Amino acid sequence: MPNPTNDTLLRALRREPTPYAPVWLMRQAGRYLPEYNVTRGRAGSFMALAQSPALATEVTLQPLARFPLDAAILFSDILTVPDAMGLGLHFEQGEGPRFARTAADEAAIAALAVPDMAKLRYVFDAVAQIKRALAGSVPLLGFAGSPFTLACYMIEGSGSTDFASVRKMVCARPDLLQRLVDVNARAVAAYLNEQIAQGADAVMLFDTWGGLLSTAAYRAYSLRSMREVLAALRPGPDGRKVPTIVFTKGGGQWLADLAESGASAVGLDWTADMARARRDVGARVALQGNLDPVVLLTDPATVTREAKAVVRAAGPAPGHIFNLGHGIMPATPPENVAALVAAVHEESRAARAAP
Amino acid sequence: MPNPTNDTLLRALRREPTPYAPVWLMRQAGRYLPEYNVTRGRAGSFMALAQSPALATEVTLQPLARFPLDAAILFSDILTVPDAMGLGLHFEQGEGPRFARTAADEAAIAALAVPDMAKLRYVFDAVAQIKRALAGSVPLLGFAGSPFTLACYMIEGSGSTDFASVRKMVCARPDLLQRLVDVNARAVAAYLNEQIAQGADAVMLFDTWGGLLSTAAYRAYSLRSMREVLAALRPGPDGRKVPTIVFTKGGGQWLADLAESGASAVGLDWTADMARARRDVGARVALQGNLDPVVLLTDPATVTREAKAVVRAAGPAPGHIFNLGHGIMPATPPENVAALVAAVHEESRAARAAP
Repeated sequence: MPNPTNDTLLRALRREPTPYAPVWLMRQAGRYLPEYNVTRGRAGSFMALAQSPALATEVTLQPLARFPLDAAILFSDILTVPDAMGLGLHFEQGEGPRFARTAADEAAIAALAVPDMAKLRYVFDAVAQIKRALAGSVPLLGFAGSPFTLACYMIEGSGSTDFASVRKMVCARPDLLQRLVDVNARAVAAYLNEQIAQGADAVMLFDTWGGLLSTAAYRAYSLRSMREVLAALRPGPDGRKVPTIVFTKGGGQWLADLAESGASAVGLDWTADMARARRDVGARVALQGNLDPVVLLTDPATVTREAKAVVRAAGPAPGHIFNLGHGIMPATPPENVAALVAAVHEESRAARAAP
Repeated sequence: MPNPTNDTLLRALRREPTPYAPVWLMRQAGRYLPEYNVTRGRAGSFMALAQSPALATEVTLQPLARFPLDAAILFSDILTVPDAMGLGLHFEQGEGPRFARTAADEAAIAALAVPDMAKLRYVFDAVAQIKRALAGSVPLLGFAGSPFTLACYMIEGSGSTDFASVRKMVCARPDLLQRLVDVNARAVAAYLNEQIAQGADAVMLFDTWGGLLSTAAYRAYSLRSMREVLAALRPGPDGRKVPTIVFTKGGGQWLADLAESGASAVGLDWTADMARARRDVGARVALQGNLDPVVLLTDPATVTREAKAVVRAAGPAPGHIFNLGHGIMPATPPENVAALVAAVHEESRAARAAP
């Protein structure tokens, strides 16, 4: 498999020089795009959309038809893995994800096992189909939830503002939490390896809830298990290490730890100080981020100004991937995304060309 | 006014040696105490409770009757100040605070002014009455919301999970946000000065939502305005600087900034690394915190173990005030609080006595 024609993302992840900062956006395929809502309506439900390789391919490609983004990201959900473990994922109308069964007590957690990857075939088929459809234009990112973040939903059975029951388990039943995170780590590693085998050019771990933990618990349950996943990843078809990204929302105070996770890049949420992060850990890892997604609710001029400020904070040295600091919001006008991508390319190209 | 008999809190805030680490708990007077719920029922509403100096005194003293805490904290709410500005605060049954009017556009923000402190007389009367009731036993903490955190509620009109409209204003109308934060800073300074005049021995700024901002916006709108408040505080009746505490939830990555805020102490939420914070900024400021409040939902043995771990992380050097990393949760069994206070006193006393 040849490298994608536009390999700026892969080069930036490896901290190699690029003519401009590559840009992609978390949730770039999603509800802010009218064409996504049409496909979503045709599918009938979020799960039907995610489970159809043809429709997942369609929505993955939609933002690339509109904007000169530097990567595609598999359209899927982090909770496909616990679903395949038998927890029964569904999405209530107008609400978040919900499991039919939780894994919150000794018996339920003991019964968990790494799922048969055949149950996730629809994801791997989507990866292969998207890869073919991209025809080498831009790289394809695969992804998974972090073992700890998956554990949060498995224990709680749904989303939560504070995941108090999970934080309680940290001190009340650390043995159970450890077992749950361990099985998740093995499942996630197998899941990402199969995405890599089917053509993912890079993979990302989304640790949405690690930031709710004490520093000690973060290291023990979130960071360590992500490190295990990363260490278990196999090389890509070209025999090279597949570039990886870790993103802990709220992890700004743990950047030094994240830089040692074994990932090629660390994603920053919008609260983190990009300039300081580049100074502190930029020699060891690439950094991805970190515009506040709320900026995309304003107007093209404001978006342009704020995006350029992030580019300037990151500086022209190799190893910056532009992204938002969290997923794109459904109310985002698509023309603001166009302004964002143009501003990032223009400003970062000019900075690299400066004498 | 003589110093309180138990002045460990004030000494620790000034980083002077104390025989043990003083302990108090955010929301120590609250719904986890059956006697609080009785008084609250008698008052009829939260606002009626907060606005009655006699009842506010009663609930402020309740936890001190049960536990050997090292400080009392005024029972009130951070939103009394915008209420006095005319926004009409009320608490819906089973919900959070809500304002009758918002201050989200040019006209509403231009119309705001520092309120006549006579409208907040009920707070100052409560301070004076609590101070008399304490009879010099332990210090009394006054408090206010940070100018930015008050702005969040004033713009949104209620609580929010992400305060997207506030973050949008940061880039869309920074001039309006600045004006709002400025008037809040002057109001909060006047409010705290009157609490000090009525007998508050130390004061704390609660910056609950500063952690939602980008680093640049945090410095511009939250940190700077807190610094202005702190700089405007008058000495206590003894002519000495009144010790101060700043607490930004989610501020772990900005500790170096917070240490330069002018406050005597920085509060840490439960995600922050207490040991590292003591090493990094402990020579400049006292540190308060930072047990995860969820630990108090377990059992006395677990609480004891986890509280002692925080005491050990902080070490025996002067300048540690034990607290939770966020407010005590309503489902907390009071016997767990008893175990917590005993564990902190015992462990910190032993560490200081060690050869």
